Amino acid sequence: MIDLYTFTTPNGRKASVMLEEVELPYTVHVIDITKGDQFTPEYVAINPNSKIPAIADRDTGMTVFESGAILIYLAEKTGKFLPADQKNRFLVLEWLMFQMGSVGPMFGQLNHFKKFAPEKIPYAIERYEKETLRLYGVLDQQLADREFICGEYSIADIATFPWVASYEFQGLTLDAHANLKRWFETVQVRPAVQKGMNVPPRK
Amino acid sequence: MIDLYTFTTPNGRKASVMLEEVELPYTVHVIDITKGDQFTPEYVAINPNSKIPAIADRDTGMTVFESGAILIYLAEKTGKFLPADQKNRFLVLEWLMFQMGSVGPMFGQLNHFKKFAPEKIPYAIERYEKETLRLYGVLDQQLADREFICGEYSIADIATFPWVASYEFQGLTLDAHANLKRWFETVQVRPAVQKGMNVPPRK
Repeated sequence: MIDLYTFTTPNGRKASVMLEEVELPYTVHVIDITKGDQFTPEYVAINPNSKIPAIADRDTGMTVFESGAILIYLAEKTGKFLPADQKNRFLVLEWLMFQMGSVGPMFGQLNHFKKFAPEKIPYAIERYEKETLRLYGVLDQQLADREFICGEYSIADIATFPWVASYEFQGLTLDAHANLKRWFETVQVRPAVQKGMNVPPRK
Repeated sequence: MIDLYTFTTPNGRKASVMLEEVELPYTVHVIDITKGDQFTPEYVAINPNSKIPAIADRDTGMTVFESGAILIYLAEKTGKFLPADQKNRFLVLEWLMFQMGSVGPMFGQLNHFKKFAPEKIPYAIERYEKETLRLYGVLDQQLADREFICGEYSIADIATFPWVASYEFQGLTLDAHANLKRWFETVQVRPAVQKGMNVPPRK
């Protein structure tokens, strides 16, 4: 049994989609980051960085924070979505790191400046919109001759999907990136993705 | 023999420090990102995201991009700085992901808005300075009862050091974070760090 500490954000969705994909039983604990739940001593003991998601695995007694580490942990626990052979394994780790270091942080900054910041700052909005579209282009090129980011469906797709799924919220479209759009539509209809993207449900 | 494609940035330094630490022979190929070297077809074939660093391992014929993936690759190749037992291995992967997803991108945005942006935007400078100091605090707390971030010296330290090393450039000080400062001074004097932080030398 996995305890999942999460909220309604793209990083949280990575973990719930993965848990649905690998079909492990899990219990959801909502950490409402709008109310400061991430700063309680109990939660900081699990994630010293006060971010969601985190998991606790009752089978091993281990806790894991950082969505990228959680995906590797669950992939290794179940033998799914992270290839065993070195070449394909590192292909997936490269694109997982690309999501962790670029897609997540940069799409996140666009969300902030375009949607949440108290003042509209054109320079910052343009900076992150331009970078988001550049990253769309990198993904689109990678998907030109592959069904999924690394060929087979993997934790690289599971990490990337919830962030790309914010495109409408961000006032963007995938129309100029046909391969990315086709990939998005392919991933979106997976039953585990549909379930996981609704854990926990938005109010 | 490792071919290292790199430049004078914190992400590049992670790879050169690691190569010095594990004592693998390597050849440096300077990718001058101020001149657009990262966009040549030859380099894009190695890193589709047009960022440094990347490596090619002549022993295996593999190329690896994304500094986080490079650190894992070199750690596994040499059996160094990434523990074998699951609990300590995931402790290191958590803090490596913390560096990849938070320290690197957020310190990088502070660099941009404080040092490089053509206009000074107080809101953005304050946003990233505040987050950088928060991340200093998270590291400081983690280092309160550990010599290194995960106890033993690991790729989590190697990933984090070159970014913290920008503190003076960023107009910050480590003085309010005594544990982080002590860690910084401990890592800084390692011979491999001193060598790796100068690959390639700044002009």
